[in-house]
Amino acid sequence: MAERVAGPEIERLIQLLARLPGLGPRSARRAALHLIRKREELFGPLAEAMQVARERILVCSACGNVDTSDPCTICRDPRRDPAALVVVETVADLWALERAGATTARYHVLGGTLSPLDGVGPKDLNIESLVGRVAENAIQEVILAVNATVDGQTTAHYITDSLAHASVKITRLAHGVPVGGELDYLDEGTLAAAMRQRTAF
Amino acid sequence: MAERVAGPEIERLIQLLARLPGLGPRSARRAALHLIRKREELFGPLAEAMQVARERILVCSACGNVDTSDPCTICRDPRRDPAALVVVETVADLWALERAGATTARYHVLGGTLSPLDGVGPKDLNIESLVGRVAENAIQEVILAVNATVDGQTTAHYITDSLAHASVKITRLAHGVPVGGELDYLDEGTLAAAMRQRTAF
Repeated sequence: MAERVAGPEIERLIQLLARLPGLGPRSARRAALHLIRKREELFGPLAEAMQVARERILVCSACGNVDTSDPCTICRDPRRDPAALVVVETVADLWALERAGATTARYHVLGGTLSPLDGVGPKDLNIESLVGRVAENAIQEVILAVNATVDGQTTAHYITDSLAHASVKITRLAHGVPVGGELDYLDEGTLAAAMRQRTAF
Repeated sequence: MAERVAGPEIERLIQLLARLPGLGPRSARRAALHLIRKREELFGPLAEAMQVARERILVCSACGNVDTSDPCTICRDPRRDPAALVVVETVADLWALERAGATTARYHVLGGTLSPLDGVGPKDLNIESLVGRVAENAIQEVILAVNATVDGQTTAHYITDSLAHASVKITRLAHGVPVGGELDYLDEGTLAAAMRQRTAF
């Protein structure tokens, strides 16, 4: 869109919307027009919510979660198991586990995975702080909930080595058939793992 | 995401983002996390751009375009052909034609198409104002750039009837093979129209 069509303000809005994941230049234009059409119901509230969130969002200095308080709501929750930590790659993974109600433990967000090719080393992740938390809080179990990818597994091994001198049990998520999944569509690795780790019925 | 995970401010931001076209609940969460990660480069500027755009955007009272001035930049542009109007369904279509540099005429945005099943009648569209503009501004050509859909064509016929008493030439966009298009992938209607309306080479 040439600038003269709709003014630099709209053009800038479209350019910034296009940088959101899931939106490209075309869908950003559509989103901007949708906002303009739904001025009262959506544009106003969204602009407001962005200002509020931008001003109030903090990163939890304990676990790396994002929240409007530091320590975050999860770290402050006294009902959480004080003896276990779930290690995740990203806040998105933390949210996914919370949606599933998968654990009552607290979390530790690594901020990514080790990836030598992309220049991501141990210093770039929150691994040192994990080792510190385990030692200081008498953690008894570290649950590695990293992705089942090569980088995720490499990171899991590195963390296991880093925690070798701590007397802590290290576990990882089970591999297996996704609930609702059909065997015919699953890869061989998953099927073999599901068979190896079969449980009593 | 339960509210306790990340606080009501983030939850509200995600809910509003999910109402943008092209984003669902899952991609809205991803977009929100992306904003939080890119706080300085993206979140701040986008929140700012939304506030500015929301405050300054107007709908042009002449043509229905959105801009930060009324009449809009296009309507005020003296280089625009004063004797022709391009009728489009939406502002998105206007922008598409402007990006293509397809015309030097001014526009008239209908705001949709006639659609009896959805309860959209002539009064819901900017048709009366089109008839008025044609009469008042000595318009000589009305170019119907509506979509080549049933509703679009119905609307085109209705507009033609409404302008029957005005001495104005009514044209419509050509049907034919899209530039770069392959014949094998085109529908029969388009191919037949392209053949009928073939031009000298």
